[in-house]
Amino acid sequence: MNELLNATHDPKLRSWVASANGAETDFPIQNLPFGSYSEGPQGARKIGVAIGDQVLDLRATGLVNTADMNELMAQSPQVLSALRAAISQGLSEGSTKQGEWKGFLSGQDAVTLHLPCRIGDYTDFYTGIHHATTVGKLFRPDAPLLPNYKWVPIGYHGRASSIGVSGQAFHRPLGQTKGPNEEVPVLRPSHRLDYELELGVLVGQGNALGEPIGMEQAEAHAFGMVLLNDWSARDVQAWEYQPLGPFLAKNFASTISPWIVTLEALAPFRAPFAHPESDPQPLPYLDSPANRNQGGIGVALEVWLETQAMRDKGQGPERLSQSNFLDAYWTVAQMLTHHTVNGCNLQPGDLLGSGTLSGPKPEQAGSLLELSLGGKKVLTLANGETRTFLEDGDAVILRASCERSGFRRIGFGDCRGQVLPARAQAAAR
Amino acid sequence: MNELLNATHDPKLRSWVASANGAETDFPIQNLPFGSYSEGPQGARKIGVAIGDQVLDLRATGLVNTADMNELMAQSPQVLSALRAAISQGLSEGSTKQGEWKGFLSGQDAVTLHLPCRIGDYTDFYTGIHHATTVGKLFRPDAPLLPNYKWVPIGYHGRASSIGVSGQAFHRPLGQTKGPNEEVPVLRPSHRLDYELELGVLVGQGNALGEPIGMEQAEAHAFGMVLLNDWSARDVQAWEYQPLGPFLAKNFASTISPWIVTLEALAPFRAPFAHPESDPQPLPYLDSPANRNQGGIGVALEVWLETQAMRDKGQGPERLSQSNFLDAYWTVAQMLTHHTVNGCNLQPGDLLGSGTLSGPKPEQAGSLLELSLGGKKVLTLANGETRTFLEDGDAVILRASCERSGFRRIGFGDCRGQVLPARAQAAAR
Repeated sequence: MNELLNATHDPKLRSWVASANGAETDFPIQNLPFGSYSEGPQGARKIGVAIGDQVLDLRATGLVNTADMNELMAQSPQVLSALRAAISQGLSEGSTKQGEWKGFLSGQDAVTLHLPCRIGDYTDFYTGIHHATTVGKLFRPDAPLLPNYKWVPIGYHGRASSIGVSGQAFHRPLGQTKGPNEEVPVLRPSHRLDYELELGVLVGQGNALGEPIGMEQAEAHAFGMVLLNDWSARDVQAWEYQPLGPFLAKNFASTISPWIVTLEALAPFRAPFAHPESDPQPLPYLDSPANRNQGGIGVALEVWLETQAMRDKGQGPERLSQSNFLDAYWTVAQMLTHHTVNGCNLQPGDLLGSGTLSGPKPEQAGSLLELSLGGKKVLTLANGETRTFLEDGDAVILRASCERSGFRRIGFGDCRGQVLPARAQAAAR
Repeated sequence: MNELLNATHDPKLRSWVASANGAETDFPIQNLPFGSYSEGPQGARKIGVAIGDQVLDLRATGLVNTADMNELMAQSPQVLSALRAAISQGLSEGSTKQGEWKGFLSGQDAVTLHLPCRIGDYTDFYTGIHHATTVGKLFRPDAPLLPNYKWVPIGYHGRASSIGVSGQAFHRPLGQTKGPNEEVPVLRPSHRLDYELELGVLVGQGNALGEPIGMEQAEAHAFGMVLLNDWSARDVQAWEYQPLGPFLAKNFASTISPWIVTLEALAPFRAPFAHPESDPQPLPYLDSPANRNQGGIGVALEVWLETQAMRDKGQGPERLSQSNFLDAYWTVAQMLTHHTVNGCNLQPGDLLGSGTLSGPKPEQAGSLLELSLGGKKVLTLANGETRTFLEDGDAVILRASCERSGFRRIGFGDCRGQVLPARAQAAAR
């Protein structure tokens, strides 16, 4: 189908790890995502590869000599591709490695998963044009998209320190908010707490300060992708964000999934990418034949909500929406190239968020701000509960998967986070 | 004068390092700022203390057992205060340490100075109310300050990876810009390149995610201060910054001074701090008796410009403006407390910029954007050259010092950065 494919993508490949061959698993042998784990919360960090419901200790195999994910990420795509091929061979049915490697497996449920790498800088883009349009309409009904949107891959810097791995629970943030009928702002718990459904790109090889990355080279700097929940306090944001952008509305917590799905694993799901002819075409520095031919990546996305009442009654979570990364307005390569065109240096482990990935239909929105029309429309859940924004105890689970006829489905694993009640306000004094 | 003072601030103290006793030095024994240096660019990193024109190898003295500044910064104020007292005693005239310690000195000119610490996250505030007002007037003559300004210490996240130490030289950035008469944007070198005169607070002890820092504890989390030049491409900023704030207009380079002047060294220069009665008073979480009594810090600031022509003719740099940190609208404690009120975690080495520190008079502006009224007023230099924004070859030098009757003057050392020509545009393809 495309020149990015190789033997590791063969849908007929099966693993001697039985759970990797089930239809339901996110982690068949065609995926092989990387994560960081330890045996017990305080154990030494190891680089793991997810296979079925197991994790393979990569260093134990002798294929790498580091337990530091950022060092691995800094390797060239050629080295990483060779590593992937060797892992794939070793885990394949009939491999001579089976006897040795089965001793390097642990159950994913039995280990502690950590942030997959050290994230030096976190940038959040705004590539979800349907999100930008819907949110823009709430403020500017006649001109929802600003004039720069279709020219500039809009982005801003986020907070790296408060990014946590799936399973993160955080207290509802306090913040200054000011209601429409209030004369002065008040410090109080956010009452418009929201999630944002995003994908994140984790940077592999960096670039030196002052040396931009062109479109042809851009994807060689993308190690892989994760799910990202960019939790947002909408009432804090509305009061604080002018003129310099979101700050405390976003930096109390952000959650990513533990497994980095490599660009190579995503190769079968590439798709042509182009803006409609009625739109401005990208400036030359953001354009390339490869980007037009296969710059898109088909990643199906889902948001699930699990309330305290659902847990109490043993009910499973409810799906709130579905969308696809193909509906984004800018590609991975365009984000990377734009970020560095001024000479800004990217480093291994840096995170680039996609921005909220909403689909074109209202029910495909990637945030409650959109689904509830800014809090005006109440959502009724199947169990009778209602929501406009998140309540204490709510857990949000993001999921992603890639499917295409003739290829094995792969998934990203869950990205789960939970809202705890606000701390007593006295703690903020 | 205040309870923050101790024997290390005694103006009569003299050092056996002769250059520390001169009237001109930024680094008398009353200062003792920390920096990171090596013997030669590739040598091992050491923690140094500036004394006169020398640097003391701190680990060699046996007073600390680490060469990692971030580890030192994570210590409690009590431990750091005891360390300062021991350094002060050892460097004082008549100290029994002189014979041993003189072997631990190197000339500051003979060593390589590095970034003083690893900066995990960089936040830039906007505390310069005169800057905010002047810039606001360029866009909104009737309402220069937005309604949130006097309630919220406005801040946003910056880019940590591109922060360099004094001496940094960087290529003029390329970026998308769109002139008022242009129908579409163009990628080209910024032609409205500017500096911003700021102070930076480097965080010492961190706080756990979810645990805000109250006003009474805030300064215990501030290790010290540096000068910060937040270089800005105004034309890029104007086109890109809506709705999420500055991005590529700022992240191509930021420069800090190499020596961290500790809060303890700044104690003699503390001052009462209050907003005028006609202004809203701070919300309770941003208020404290200590902040009102001595939240201000008198730091005199200067911007100097050195052009290529000046260097060619052996002329010294020209001073463009002077201001003072006392004119900021929010204090160090208020920045730290606001940043964490939502639970955001700060880590040792994090940098909090003050925002551009302009004084109340037009000639006290901390940026060319203000001095040139958005490019409309041409500045004529003493040598006949003119500027609205920075030209290739221009070096900008920021300086800061603290003086008060009855105390020894201390300074910050230079924060110097230089603009190199833009790289050929093909490099961005």
